[in-house]
Amino acid sequence: MYVVCVTIHVKSEHVDPFIQATLENARQTRKEPGNIRFDVLQAEDDFTRFFLYECYKMPSDFTAHQQTEHYLTWRETVQDWMAEKRIGVKHNSIFPDDQSE
Amino acid sequence: MYVVCVTIHVKSEHVDPFIQATLENARQTRKEPGNIRFDVLQAEDDFTRFFLYECYKMPSDFTAHQQTEHYLTWRETVQDWMAEKRIGVKHNSIFPDDQSE
Repeated sequence: MYVVCVTIHVKSEHVDPFIQATLENARQTRKEPGNIRFDVLQAEDDFTRFFLYECYKMPSDFTAHQQTEHYLTWRETVQDWMAEKRIGVKHNSIFPDDQSE
Repeated sequence: MYVVCVTIHVKSEHVDPFIQATLENARQTRKEPGNIRFDVLQAEDDFTRFFLYECYKMPSDFTAHQQTEHYLTWRETVQDWMAEKRIGVKHNSIFPDDQSE
């Protein structure tokens, strides 16, 4: 399992539309054959801070995701709503080690 | 769903025992009734950087986890292996919103 963790800080006045745009991207991404999971989280102590937990079967599935219409639409829609540059960190899963989990 | 994201930087000479101790903690935590998920990830570009993705049904389940023998054993075992203080960030899940997922 290949996991991309994205930390996002949104300008407070754009939090609601950011959530809506991100939910749409999450739902569409879950339909991709190489996607296993796409969690959208909001920090408990700061409603402007978000975390995306994106799981794919393998790195090429993430590359394919970055070429989808829903991802490109999301990226363009939210770009001016960021309070700072978003940070993505790529990981390999040690546990669980089964691609189906 | 309540999610605790833990970023960990391990001294390079302690990476292997850190993985073993963390796998044991992950397997035991998965048996807790309030735990939904416990992913152990290793950064793609730095084998000394790890990420724990801990999902619980609700905040009190995480509090209960912190009182378990396996968590306390893990915490004590790995404490001298950290290259820097670990960072935990608590979140509420927006998507998925079903506790069972």
